[in-house]
Amino acid sequence: MIITLTTDFGYKDPFVGIMKGVIAGINPHARVVDLSHGVPPQDVVAGALVLRNSIPYFPPDTIHVVVVDPGVGTARRPILIQSRRNYLIGPDNGVLSLAAADKSPDRLIHLSNSTYHRKPVSATFHGRDIFAPIAAYLSLGIDPAAFGETVEDYARITWPPVVKAEDGIKGEIVYIDGFGNLFTNIQVDDLNSLAKEKLRISLRGITVRRIATSYAAGKNRDYIAVINSFGALEIAVYKNSAQRRSQAKVGDEVFISAGET
Amino acid sequence: MIITLTTDFGYKDPFVGIMKGVIAGINPHARVVDLSHGVPPQDVVAGALVLRNSIPYFPPDTIHVVVVDPGVGTARRPILIQSRRNYLIGPDNGVLSLAAADKSPDRLIHLSNSTYHRKPVSATFHGRDIFAPIAAYLSLGIDPAAFGETVEDYARITWPPVVKAEDGIKGEIVYIDGFGNLFTNIQVDDLNSLAKEKLRISLRGITVRRIATSYAAGKNRDYIAVINSFGALEIAVYKNSAQRRSQAKVGDEVFISAGET
Amino acid sequence: MIITLTTDFGYKDPFVGIMKGVIAGINPHARVVDLSHGVPPQDVVAGALVLRNSIPYFPPDTIHVVVVDPGVGTARRPILIQSRRNYLIGPDNGVLSLAAADKSPDRLIHLSNSTYHRKPVSATFHGRDIFAPIAAYLSLGIDPAAFGETVEDYARITWPPVVKAEDGIKGEIVYIDGFGNLFTNIQVDDLNSLAKEKLRISLRGITVRRIATSYAAGKNRDYIAVINSFGALEIAVYKNSAQRRSQAKVGDEVFISAGET
Repeated sequence: MIITLTTDFGYKDPFVGIMKGVIAGINPHARVVDLSHGVPPQDVVAGALVLRNSIPYFPPDTIHVVVVDPGVGTARRPILIQSRRNYLIGPDNGVLSLAAADKSPDRLIHLSNSTYHRKPVSATFHGRDIFAPIAAYLSLGIDPAAFGETVEDYARITWPPVVKAEDGIKGEIVYIDGFGNLFTNIQVDDLNSLAKEKLRISLRGITVRRIATSYAAGKNRDYIAVINSFGALEIAVYKNSAQRRSQAKVGDEVFISAGET
Repeated sequence: MIITLTTDFGYKDPFVGIMKGVIAGINPHARVVDLSHGVPPQDVVAGALVLRNSIPYFPPDTIHVVVVDPGVGTARRPILIQSRRNYLIGPDNGVLSLAAADKSPDRLIHLSNSTYHRKPVSATFHGRDIFAPIAAYLSLGIDPAAFGETVEDYARITWPPVVKAEDGIKGEIVYIDGFGNLFTNIQVDDLNSLAKEKLRISLRGITVRRIATSYAAGKNRDYIAVINSFGALEIAVYKNSAQRRSQAKVGDEVFISAGET
Repeated sequence: MIITLTTDFGYKDPFVGIMKGVIAGINPHARVVDLSHGVPPQDVVAGALVLRNSIPYFPPDTIHVVVVDPGVGTARRPILIQSRRNYLIGPDNGVLSLAAADKSPDRLIHLSNSTYHRKPVSATFHGRDIFAPIAAYLSLGIDPAAFGETVEDYARITWPPVVKAEDGIKGEIVYIDGFGNLFTNIQVDDLNSLAKEKLRISLRGITVRRIATSYAAGKNRDYIAVINSFGALEIAVYKNSAQRRSQAKVGDEVFISAGET
């Protein structure tokens, strides 16, 4: 059984390694895969997006642990969301919600049973003291019901909607990857209503007029648009950083018209 | 059997991967866990602290390899420290000493038997040529005595002491994590002698007047103090970097008074 | 069977983790080792060098996957190079060629059989859709011939030659590691023709007059030269970054004379 880890811990400190030590102490046979530890500090939305974009590529019953947890030590609950496809474990601050959004979960557990926590539970590192041990016990086959009481709802992040207007659609930048590629919230299906040959994509004064089929299509250092590997519209510059060149930020508006101009 | 790796190699180069290749060539079944490869270059004290803070969370008999090794290629010895709890392998420059400090080791071996080294041993990469192979052979069950002669002592780092005065206690910043949280050498027990309700923590002109129970208690962007997950007093700023805001450095003095003021 | 991964994906995003998810879905028992994900973006030569320097330290039959792939989505072929020693998988842009250079491969396959690809294959992430699944199927024992047709040649990178002159030899900086050490293309054998006691190494106005046997030999913060762990001449500064101090870049000329001066 695979356990994935996604955190905002970065790569300087041993915090992720410590979580793996805790897991190995409970289930020496658990297989742990790092999704990313480069989520920007306390950026719950980015963590939620990383998780959502990653889970389709893992086998059924994978256990996904996310620790982007600015509220650690407060009343925010530690939760487990079980679906037919997988298990999501983390703080109830919305970071699991984009991954869980498609369906109502089979089971939603508040991880309140301290029998399965490391003791004492610290005020600042529930990744080590709650989430890692729960994931490890779950990977041993413990029934999720043992971890705490069933609850009815969990915190959700509002995913920015793609707005359809008469002259086009409006979305926004939702994630910027390490190459500086700008991921939008506009999915390939959102573009179906538009005449592809007349597309005009606008972002921070930049205009892109077609959707390329590879990064290399932008050989003259122009901005290009592609449908990226998550099915979303992405703005990029071949062998360069669209972010650095445009100074774009998460939240910037992207407008797509299919007009005559 | 788990082998952990802690280095100052960073994440640009394949040096860590190469060590894993060497280990896999000797023991294909060894399980390798990365503790951190973000130890600042040649910072033996930071490496020692990372190791000390991490080993309590690993199962018994774990093999911990540390390569923070500015003296590679000189006369400094490669050593193995065996205790009832675990094995520590690395250069004899103090980097293992904080982890080993609590007890006299069961066995201390100078890794001088070249039978268990990769050949030729390079002048610059004993992680690959000595420490990784020794860890791999050890994980196969080879008796540590085979790796070289028993020696009597090893290099120790002087841990900065917490100084108790009449009006309070004096410590210092010993580590700064990737979030910019400032770890002090002051442990929770050091605070027992002080009246908690009158605490006054001073650092670089900053004053913090109480110990919070979560980062989120500092919602107004003030500095806060917490007892962190390693049981140490830590200065932090909620959703921000206390290091960036204060320009604090490792070695900066922290004074705690419990006076009237 | 070990699968290694080398990419320019960096450490912010979940792309590497996603590749591991795909591999685990096909072969749950594959062992994956990260070589480096810190190859500079789109730097095919650096990726090729990382691979060449790393593969000698892995067991026979290791599967090495490299994704430094600026041409993803274009006509550049995905290939597999099989030798007696190992398997190399990646884009046919030269990134595999330094590792494969020594011998003619046993088999060279264009990975054209979509049966073994994830579907649909995206325009931007063949690491996930082609290279990871091929590596996983190969680790299951599928015959490489099943992955596509045999082809005759693959793209090669021109390795900068060491030029021998009457008064010395001329090479260049080919890689700079995370410590700021400057790797040259000059191998230890290239130095055999020179009188070691009269060496004079010149780089950007810097002169180094001997080859040290450890970094620590340069205690006074001078530049030093060492034969590094890959058998190459390297310029370094003890406990410092030769790159930062000299502003040297990949491609800078290094001249070695053995003259009287």
